[in-house]
Amino acid sequence: MTTLDIPWTLAALAEKINATLQGITPEQAAHVLIEGMAPLTTATPTQLAFLAQSRYRAELARTQAAAVLMTITEAQQFKGVSLIVDNPYAAFAILSHCFDNTPKLAVGIHSSAVVHATAIVHESAAVGAHVVIEANSCIGADVQLQAGVFVGARCQIGAGSFLGPHAVVQHDCIIGERVRVHSGAVIGADGFGFAPDKGQWQRIAQLGAVQIGSDSRIGANTTIDRGALDDTIIGHNVIIDNQVQIGHNVHIGDYTAIAACCGIAGSTRIGQHCILAGGVGIVGHISITDNVHLTGMTMVTKSIEQAGSYSSGTAMSESKHWKKMAVQLRQLPDFSLLNMQKQIQALQAEVAALKRQDNP
Amino acid sequence: MTTLDIPWTLAALAEKINATLQGITPEQAAHVLIEGMAPLTTATPTQLAFLAQSRYRAELARTQAAAVLMTITEAQQFKGVSLIVDNPYAAFAILSHCFDNTPKLAVGIHSSAVVHATAIVHESAAVGAHVVIEANSCIGADVQLQAGVFVGARCQIGAGSFLGPHAVVQHDCIIGERVRVHSGAVIGADGFGFAPDKGQWQRIAQLGAVQIGSDSRIGANTTIDRGALDDTIIGHNVIIDNQVQIGHNVHIGDYTAIAACCGIAGSTRIGQHCILAGGVGIVGHISITDNVHLTGMTMVTKSIEQAGSYSSGTAMSESKHWKKMAVQLRQLPDFSLLNMQKQIQALQAEVAALKRQDNP
Amino acid sequence: MTTLDIPWTLAALAEKINATLQGITPEQAAHVLIEGMAPLTTATPTQLAFLAQSRYRAELARTQAAAVLMTITEAQQFKGVSLIVDNPYAAFAILSHCFDNTPKLAVGIHSSAVVHATAIVHESAAVGAHVVIEANSCIGADVQLQAGVFVGARCQIGAGSFLGPHAVVQHDCIIGERVRVHSGAVIGADGFGFAPDKGQWQRIAQLGAVQIGSDSRIGANTTIDRGALDDTIIGHNVIIDNQVQIGHNVHIGDYTAIAACCGIAGSTRIGQHCILAGGVGIVGHISITDNVHLTGMTMVTKSIEQAGSYSSGTAMSESKHWKKMAVQLRQLPDFSLLNMQKQIQALQAEVAALKRQDNP
Repeated sequence: MTTLDIPWTLAALAEKINATLQGITPEQAAHVLIEGMAPLTTATPTQLAFLAQSRYRAELARTQAAAVLMTITEAQQFKGVSLIVDNPYAAFAILSHCFDNTPKLAVGIHSSAVVHATAIVHESAAVGAHVVIEANSCIGADVQLQAGVFVGARCQIGAGSFLGPHAVVQHDCIIGERVRVHSGAVIGADGFGFAPDKGQWQRIAQLGAVQIGSDSRIGANTTIDRGALDDTIIGHNVIIDNQVQIGHNVHIGDYTAIAACCGIAGSTRIGQHCILAGGVGIVGHISITDNVHLTGMTMVTKSIEQAGSYSSGTAMSESKHWKKMAVQLRQLPDFSLLNMQKQIQALQAEVAALKRQDNP
Repeated sequence: MTTLDIPWTLAALAEKINATLQGITPEQAAHVLIEGMAPLTTATPTQLAFLAQSRYRAELARTQAAAVLMTITEAQQFKGVSLIVDNPYAAFAILSHCFDNTPKLAVGIHSSAVVHATAIVHESAAVGAHVVIEANSCIGADVQLQAGVFVGARCQIGAGSFLGPHAVVQHDCIIGERVRVHSGAVIGADGFGFAPDKGQWQRIAQLGAVQIGSDSRIGANTTIDRGALDDTIIGHNVIIDNQVQIGHNVHIGDYTAIAACCGIAGSTRIGQHCILAGGVGIVGHISITDNVHLTGMTMVTKSIEQAGSYSSGTAMSESKHWKKMAVQLRQLPDFSLLNMQKQIQALQAEVAALKRQDNP
Repeated sequence: MTTLDIPWTLAALAEKINATLQGITPEQAAHVLIEGMAPLTTATPTQLAFLAQSRYRAELARTQAAAVLMTITEAQQFKGVSLIVDNPYAAFAILSHCFDNTPKLAVGIHSSAVVHATAIVHESAAVGAHVVIEANSCIGADVQLQAGVFVGARCQIGAGSFLGPHAVVQHDCIIGERVRVHSGAVIGADGFGFAPDKGQWQRIAQLGAVQIGSDSRIGANTTIDRGALDDTIIGHNVIIDNQVQIGHNVHIGDYTAIAACCGIAGSTRIGQHCILAGGVGIVGHISITDNVHLTGMTMVTKSIEQAGSYSSGTAMSESKHWKKMAVQLRQLPDFSLLNMQKQIQALQAEVAALKRQDNP
């Protein structure tokens, strides 16, 4: 494990993000000690806060923070100490790592790990307790394999990647550089491929693997299945939350974000810069173009060719009200709203005619 | 592993729950041997059954059970042997443990476990095969860590807690007393925190941890993420089923129950005594008050301030019917039901006027 | 690990599936080497392809494949080399195993495995690194337990079964022959049984176990809970995808297929030959008859007594449109479509009468 340089000086933190100091001189900032980061409302005088959205501006007046990350626009109205940056939230993201006390594994291979003689582990990599690395796999520089990680045969784990406790990567999968795979994630289990044959299910061997691009992130207990014939492919800087299921031969484009509990069925392709909110379900064998936003729990049953935001489902209401709505909904196919509208219009015309006739 | 005192005498079981015997003398009950518990319909003459809901009363007449747990109200109409208690289902819960033959781990640390020199393991705790306990963690009295459990650095596992095979608790998390964490659950993986920065995702270090109150229950393969700045907090006697996802900085109030496959996004607060049925999805940054009941698969997109039952979604129907409904639903925004209703009323008034005019 | 006989001759593959050669003599086929299988569009001259659905027929003309699996009907219109079979997709499934290079564990017990002295492991079984097998369990012939598998006390794992890395089978569970349980699946964790008692949750010991029939398949990170009093039962040749949750005392009939992310609550019974698409949720204590098809994300809240296809949910639309629809939906209970329709009909009759009166 490493010791962090906590506390940092405000000057040192400002330098890391190329921030402009306001309300404080560089000399003073070199003597202000920062022990952590916190939201505006709870920050103490030894903590740094950030203002990422103007709707939190009211909290500025009362903050106890030593300094606040903000844009130049916000800083013009602020009397306190600020670090001026273009993107305060991204600056916060960068600085958060200065306070990260996640224990780091010791470099080297733990005595309880089982590493096949043909596997190659870089000398700067850390292989934790009870890790298993099978034949002909290659573990890159600075990789951390936490306790209980399984890496199957012929895998490549790129430099700087982190696999959390109990993460599983099965044979022939390729993980890029600086990828983080969290606990319990399973990369490369068999795709769900079965042929119906006289009422029985005949298993199809899954001959592909999984490729994950650099700087991507796979959440805890997420599953990404190996391909049937070709590989399942996750792009570069794709971020995937927990408990997501990605079927065989899915392709996910670069920079796409997938929140927890989404399920994507086999052979579907998702573009770049898409955002899937939690619980979205997508059928197999369709395509979703770039820059699509799917709101929570949306059910996608056909391809999406236009960028934009899409939704399905019904809004929540009190269960009593919901039951009435459900009954009405069931009856909806018994009626044609279009016909009813036309009938009303026809009646309006007829009544108008009758009125004219009666009152010429 | 332990040997249970099976069979029990009916008298011994009655005493454990302070039940009043009916239809049998205490002397007789001391000689009736009970080998297990079973539903009314399948219980044999050496098994104990229970009547928890009056709608199962008809099954009483035909039961072969040695005795039946029931309320005094039910007992007044029953001629057989009964154990009278206030809450038959709770009494059944208590007695179920008399027949639980789940193997218990041997006290002590298995030779294959990897326990850091600075970790403290209570002498009454049981640490199974291939368990890993990292630096400065503290394992309380009577704790059972089943095979393959991972406990990260600086964790506390409260007295009497049980972690099933392969459960993962990451660094700095605090688990209360008598908590049960089932197989494959992951407590304290990174929250899903990323800042968008020029089209890329910048990771935010997750500096908080997870706290779980006493007598809580975390299901198999459930994930509870560590907080971004502060901790994620699960209250006291919270029961959570399998495959639930709880995002960073969520707070769950005491005595709340969460069924399988629910997903709760970051920073949301859920009150006490709530019940979430299976598959509920809740967006981030909202509040749900105490005593809220959410029916299965409800999508919650805004705060709930009134206790009560809430639902969303549509009722199931035959797919053919459902397709027609889906088409009608899509057209719904093209119509104003309110306008149509008003137009009908206007027509009714006009026609009535015309009729009066024609037939004065 | 094994060496596969790759490449195969086309003649050898044809023989394995009793295919009739077309466009090539048996002598020629004995000299055509096949190195793999691929889709029609990407197959190379050393690969075998298949035509399983007539809608892909257009791809036949351009395929580079050495030969194509197809029915006799399709073959009549095809000039190239084909292997004629009744069910090309099932034939593809069978042949896929000829190219499966999944590493096989070495027979025997890895030195790091912890196997209880009373457990019986067949001499042809393979027990990988860090596997744990507890007391009185029985591991059948040719079973593969990959690295980190946990088998609790008194389990039976049938001949030919495969448990992927980190799969968990808890005490007293019975797994049939040739069952595949993928990584991170948890069989036999406690069912979610709690009795409410004065505002608190009282745990009910889960005294049953799980039984899984032969030739079944359990996906990665799927959870199947042990029964409360009796067992949870999965039939023969049931195929279950990843991240499925099956509650205590559920029964799943033979040959049923369950796609990813489904959740089935306790004590529900599902018939034979059913197909559940992804994300289906089913409440507890209901029955679903044989040959039921549930489309993706369907919410099932009551028993289904007629075979057929069932659905729920709403179709996806652009978020703007969806919001309007959601508003209209909420208002639906304020209107009676039936009444509106009747009022329109009454008006039509009255207007017709008025017109006849005015224009006799």
